[in-house]
Amino acid sequence: MSHPPEIDAILMIASSEASADMLYAVGMFVPDPFTCIEQNGRRTLVMSDLEIDRARTQAKADEILSLTAYQNRLKERGIPQPDLADVVAEALRDKNIRSVQVPLGFPVGYADRLRERGIIVQAKDDPFLDARPTKTPQEIEYIALASRHTESALREAIGTIGEAIVKDGLLCGPEGVMTSEYVKKIINLHLLERDCLALHTIVAGGLQGCDPHDQGSGPLRAGEPIILDVFPRSNVTGYFADITRTVIKGRASDALKRQYDAVLEAQEVAFVRLKAGIDGQDIHKAVEDHFKKQGFETGEKDGRLQGFFHGTGHGFGLEVHEPPRISNISCLLKAGHAVTVEPGLYYTATGGVRIEDNVVVTETGYENLTRIEKRLEI
Amino acid sequence: MSHPPEIDAILMIASSEASADMLYAVGMFVPDPFTCIEQNGRRTLVMSDLEIDRARTQAKADEILSLTAYQNRLKERGIPQPDLADVVAEALRDKNIRSVQVPLGFPVGYADRLRERGIIVQAKDDPFLDARPTKTPQEIEYIALASRHTESALREAIGTIGEAIVKDGLLCGPEGVMTSEYVKKIINLHLLERDCLALHTIVAGGLQGCDPHDQGSGPLRAGEPIILDVFPRSNVTGYFADITRTVIKGRASDALKRQYDAVLEAQEVAFVRLKAGIDGQDIHKAVEDHFKKQGFETGEKDGRLQGFFHGTGHGFGLEVHEPPRISNISCLLKAGHAVTVEPGLYYTATGGVRIEDNVVVTETGYENLTRIEKRLEI
Repeated sequence: MSHPPEIDAILMIASSEASADMLYAVGMFVPDPFTCIEQNGRRTLVMSDLEIDRARTQAKADEILSLTAYQNRLKERGIPQPDLADVVAEALRDKNIRSVQVPLGFPVGYADRLRERGIIVQAKDDPFLDARPTKTPQEIEYIALASRHTESALREAIGTIGEAIVKDGLLCGPEGVMTSEYVKKIINLHLLERDCLALHTIVAGGLQGCDPHDQGSGPLRAGEPIILDVFPRSNVTGYFADITRTVIKGRASDALKRQYDAVLEAQEVAFVRLKAGIDGQDIHKAVEDHFKKQGFETGEKDGRLQGFFHGTGHGFGLEVHEPPRISNISCLLKAGHAVTVEPGLYYTATGGVRIEDNVVVTETGYENLTRIEKRLEI
Repeated sequence: MSHPPEIDAILMIASSEASADMLYAVGMFVPDPFTCIEQNGRRTLVMSDLEIDRARTQAKADEILSLTAYQNRLKERGIPQPDLADVVAEALRDKNIRSVQVPLGFPVGYADRLRERGIIVQAKDDPFLDARPTKTPQEIEYIALASRHTESALREAIGTIGEAIVKDGLLCGPEGVMTSEYVKKIINLHLLERDCLALHTIVAGGLQGCDPHDQGSGPLRAGEPIILDVFPRSNVTGYFADITRTVIKGRASDALKRQYDAVLEAQEVAFVRLKAGIDGQDIHKAVEDHFKKQGFETGEKDGRLQGFFHGTGHGFGLEVHEPPRISNISCLLKAGHAVTVEPGLYYTATGGVRIEDNVVVTETGYENLTRIEKRLEI
């Protein structure tokens, strides 16, 4: 963490559960908002009574101050119910800090109150902490571990779909008709057993898979593609993985096979270009061109968007979506960036196909962290 | 939702997963930030391509506009990569909105960019949406349903502890020494099976229970109190429950029994005072007085805070902590407020005790939604 020379310090007020920047800085999960000040490389936390003892033993910090002590001091000075802005302003004053750099998402209510108290508050665009997008070997290990768990959950789910019996076109398992909800529960429980929290897991068949944010619901059918997109966070390390596979129970039509192969090739189009120094936008354009050349058009058809209409990939780590992006916005990729590569094609006639791996950008190319096979028909 | 007459509109930019206000307003889970404008009771959303179709069918809104359409319009006007602030400023201009009220937690980065574009941005203290703290019968039903699931998870966990065998003072189950982690997993899986997400479940024995934020870890012991604090959110409705019980495997010492009874009585001290029109601070003071009268002192002892050093209760609903508070800050309670009542006493000599029910304030008193029994020795 460092601040520009014309600014006295960095300031964050957030829970490290909600703010990945805060978690990155202090290395400790705290459920309620607290204050972090960094001045010339020295980190100070202001903690409530509930967290101060734990912070003293666990937090990455040079100094830990008591919120209550500040509140008492302000009460003695005649402020009956000092709020957090009062306390932070006082702590900044103690350190002769007159200007702070804050994250884009810093609460405007606190910013305005600090400004009323004479502090200059300047918001910085993401990434707020310059080092965060570039993962250390330790962080890559955490991501790889989350990937292992995600892959084993996917294997269990795909195995379950593979073992289904087809009755009247519907998949059936030991508990009757197999639903998206049933398969999602298998995945989420599998991950919870491994201390990973999976939210919004997608198991979306047929038309549902054509809406990339539809999580899927109801009976799963044979003969239509099923997208499984799983992106859990480790409760232990805080790091995410984010992997997608598309499968079909039974035989795929030739049209669907072509669509699947085009998505697989699109990954390769991205992979061969991936290395430190390339612009993510160039990769995304190459993927778009690839689809167009193969005859897979993108645009509104029958009243809904079809084709390829999301980014090729995104950074991830302590958040499931973080800088950099591989999309239609210019964004330089660097060694150590952890990104997804997830082209997809969505047509109401055939269904949705998306394939997503997790890779780390290197000086010479990339390392693919994802080990689970890619096979359409199961 | 309504805004003061001198302000033209209400503005939120947030994901309805992260912002309970946004979820309350639009009634639909959206994982990525989007824009909500409310002008004279008319609600407009600006949605990305990924969400616009779903929003049209599911969101509580009078008008749904396309983010992409705005971006294209701005690009045509020569802004190569319009950001969200550009889009929002343009949407506000279209509606002749020159001033907006935003939540305290609105991102300062967006607020400042809107201000640069001539918009007056005013942050409002919580509760942002005046109606949110007062729960409707439908909301109370959702909370009660989350409570039922929480209670059944607690029953399973307490049953498991009750059935443990004691070896060398340690609780042992079918898988060997019984740990906090093992019991937490029972609770969290039980809740996940019922589509509820439990984070940070506390199963903390002995000294660990003396730190109200310690989630507990390692072997559980006979003869010391174990605090079980469970506060899941329904994935379906978004509503929380938040229930705590304290149990001991084996016999409690007389000192611990006195401590437990004092906490039970403290709940009654709160309950008899609870009704619309009372100040939460008065209830909290009565609870503090009760403990003091019974000889349970609060303060730093042996280098750590002991006694009763957190609030008596807090509002909950779409967030686990939301207004109102029952604490040392003045806060008027109204009919329809859903609050916890959770006195606790924490001493290193005996361990921690906390008992927490969920109640709804009524004109004449309160309704206790929590049905699970309170029994120390199991």
